[in-house]
Amino acid sequence: MQKLMQVLGYNFNDTELLRLALSHRSVGGQNNERLEFLGDSIINFIVADELFMRFPTVTEGQLTRMRAQMVCAEMLTVIAKEFEFGKYVVLGAGERRSGGHQRASILADALEAVVGAIYLDSNKDLKLLKNTILRWYDKHWHVFDDKNAQGNKDPKTVLQELLQAKRLELPVYEVVKIEGEQHKQTFYVECKVALLDEPTTGVGNSRRKAEQMAAIEALGKLQNATK
Amino acid sequence: MQKLMQVLGYNFNDTELLRLALSHRSVGGQNNERLEFLGDSIINFIVADELFMRFPTVTEGQLTRMRAQMVCAEMLTVIAKEFEFGKYVVLGAGERRSGGHQRASILADALEAVVGAIYLDSNKDLKLLKNTILRWYDKHWHVFDDKNAQGNKDPKTVLQELLQAKRLELPVYEVVKIEGEQHKQTFYVECKVALLDEPTTGVGNSRRKAEQMAAIEALGKLQNATK
Repeated sequence: MQKLMQVLGYNFNDTELLRLALSHRSVGGQNNERLEFLGDSIINFIVADELFMRFPTVTEGQLTRMRAQMVCAEMLTVIAKEFEFGKYVVLGAGERRSGGHQRASILADALEAVVGAIYLDSNKDLKLLKNTILRWYDKHWHVFDDKNAQGNKDPKTVLQELLQAKRLELPVYEVVKIEGEQHKQTFYVECKVALLDEPTTGVGNSRRKAEQMAAIEALGKLQNATK
Repeated sequence: MQKLMQVLGYNFNDTELLRLALSHRSVGGQNNERLEFLGDSIINFIVADELFMRFPTVTEGQLTRMRAQMVCAEMLTVIAKEFEFGKYVVLGAGERRSGGHQRASILADALEAVVGAIYLDSNKDLKLLKNTILRWYDKHWHVFDDKNAQGNKDPKTVLQELLQAKRLELPVYEVVKIEGEQHKQTFYVECKVALLDEPTTGVGNSRRKAEQMAAIEALGKLQNATK
């Protein structure tokens, strides 16, 4: 268990909770199913949050597909196998005999349950949990490398590079309106882009934010225009 | 908007974010779809967490069904209508003409997006968000009243009442082992119940916790036995 906690990157206060998380329903009595329910929703949320922040310009449809890819049983099994969960899962006699230690669904479910267990054991410290889980996922984000190249960048940069690649003029941003009192202003920005008939507009509580929003809109329209 | 923030129970720093959350994709350009993706995963997680804590004795299958009931479009639409979202959603001309202000899916999606927006606007303050969302749900938990009657109680109490109702002897708990150093002990408890051939066992880092776990297992076995 000590070794498992080391690779998980989390030290349980109550190691019985970890043991419960590793106990497949085939053991009868107390098992990991409720923890799995909890852990599943936590992984979903943490991955959704991370995708939302990492990829500011991809659509909701893409985000949904990307999340499915990251939280599917296959991906969870890969991670569980990296941690050698097969050595630690607790199974009933029947499952044990029929090779349950290596069954993908058992390993993936146990990983979800371990997430639920860490959540409870850490007194619901979601920041800690987020860091822990994102570390597990660290080497798996590369599946989105093509999106990542764009996603990690400021949308203004993405827009600029796109236009440069097409040898078009760079976008021009202009603040067209500022509303509200000092320190609580709302900025309205227009962004003129060579390929678009009309400027796009962005709104935000800083000039930079408004420009980014206008750039995102321009990117969206350019994507539609070039489909 | 002021009135909407009042009924939502959250005051936006950046009201543009709220406006974005209310903007249906029919407006073109910037809309609430990405925020909806984020909010959906947050509601899922918060409801799962709450169900897990409220109903310590229900199974994973029941929890999954209960969550589905709480986060389905119908329920979200009910809440969105209580907040009169129809007055606030921003629609494209076509949707507006065809009565989109009252379309259930548009209202439910906007509610999810508002959750995403509160998350971002509050600098990801999940505690605040949890309080806010659970207040919205407050009057809707009653759909689980039959489960609630049991779920809110200590599993030991539930077990005791179940046995009393059947005019059976009360359960007997016994600590059978204590492991570990002082302040970091693990308790093993057995629970003897009239209808069960063998005592159930519970493990926890306090005697009370171990007894509760043993009671939960006994409840599970009794439920199976009486099916």
